[in-house]
Amino acid sequence: MPSQPTTAERSREPRSLLAAARLCVLVDGGADARDFEDRVAGLVSAGVPLLQIRDKNLPDRVLLGRVRQALAVVQRQPTPRTLVIVNDRVDVAAAAGADGAHLGASDLPVTAARAILGPDRLIGCTAHDLAEADAANAAGADYLGVGPCFPSTTKAFAVQADREFLAAAARLPLPVFAIGGIVPQRLPELAALGIDRIAVAAAVTKAADPEAAARAFIDAIGTVQRRA
Amino acid sequence: MPSQPTTAERSREPRSLLAAARLCVLVDGGADARDFEDRVAGLVSAGVPLLQIRDKNLPDRVLLGRVRQALAVVQRQPTPRTLVIVNDRVDVAAAAGADGAHLGASDLPVTAARAILGPDRLIGCTAHDLAEADAANAAGADYLGVGPCFPSTTKAFAVQADREFLAAAARLPLPVFAIGGIVPQRLPELAALGIDRIAVAAAVTKAADPEAAARAFIDAIGTVQRRA
Repeated sequence: MPSQPTTAERSREPRSLLAAARLCVLVDGGADARDFEDRVAGLVSAGVPLLQIRDKNLPDRVLLGRVRQALAVVQRQPTPRTLVIVNDRVDVAAAAGADGAHLGASDLPVTAARAILGPDRLIGCTAHDLAEADAANAAGADYLGVGPCFPSTTKAFAVQADREFLAAAARLPLPVFAIGGIVPQRLPELAALGIDRIAVAAAVTKAADPEAAARAFIDAIGTVQRRA
Repeated sequence: MPSQPTTAERSREPRSLLAAARLCVLVDGGADARDFEDRVAGLVSAGVPLLQIRDKNLPDRVLLGRVRQALAVVQRQPTPRTLVIVNDRVDVAAAAGADGAHLGASDLPVTAARAILGPDRLIGCTAHDLAEADAANAAGADYLGVGPCFPSTTKAFAVQADREFLAAAARLPLPVFAIGGIVPQRLPELAALGIDRIAVAAAVTKAADPEAAARAFIDAIGTVQRRA
């Protein structure tokens, strides 16, 4: 058996796992707890390093239960385990003991979330332009989601993020995940902009075989990395 | 000028203010910040001791702004100031530095909220039956909202709380606010059940003159108290 990490190692763990994470999959909580756990287990088994649970419809207490279920799944994993981040709900993330929270422009500010989550948990921010990206970085965000990069079926976007912004965001000193309509074939285009991390939702979760779709993304990321 | 309270006095302040509070008014955040501040100032000026901000529609960051506005209003008051509680959103309450959060049966559990809010801020719970009331009390809730007591225009309730439950809740060792369709004329009926605190929404906020409506409730509470 591997030795147990020290307290100091544990406290650094989310950030070191984040540094290695190239794929974030966004999942909803779904109608059924058992189905949710199966879906999470499938994605974890596929090697997805970062799961963001995003559900604006579930009652808070049910969402809390789903996050705890996901954490129970990843705690049974061998290391490196999958990170579990909660979209929007800083209180749910804190109550569940999740690895962090992801915030959009209309959610709580980073400083407010940091006061609740403490220094060790992760705070991700969505940025639609360089001003938002710079502000999130300055406020202490741990990573950025930038986009929307391509037309997407999950959200109807009016305007796609421009390529100059994506390239500038990629030069910021924190991990940057591109989001919005990403399929494996798009990865070289993103890599050319300097972006080597992606976040996906429907392309994995609505696939006929979500686990296979996740593996296809992970393989594609590996191929692009080896070429770089 | 009155002397400043010590740190220990400040930390006890929300609970001692709660002990004296007989009226809670639920307000939404509204479409307009200026209008919201005027409404809050009117209710504060009327002497409302407890405001609960309940808004499930505003973006989180806007709700946070509204709560901060309300806190700024009450901080300009002479003591005893009005308490400001946030419905549902423990993270928003914590981020704003509100006096506490109010939780329904589908919101975060009391223990989760307590871990985020700490020992000094208030946690209120809605209870629809004695099992929920007992559980909230055992979990460390600071006060209860019990009901629905009477037909209400704010929420369409299937079943009204039975009188045995209301009387039993009134005997629990924490402040109990009756809610649901309460008008001043109902207060003697509630007092006969042992309930001397009320929470109202539309009866004040949708009144032609909300400030006058709040004063009418406060007067009626005083009259019932003097008779008791």
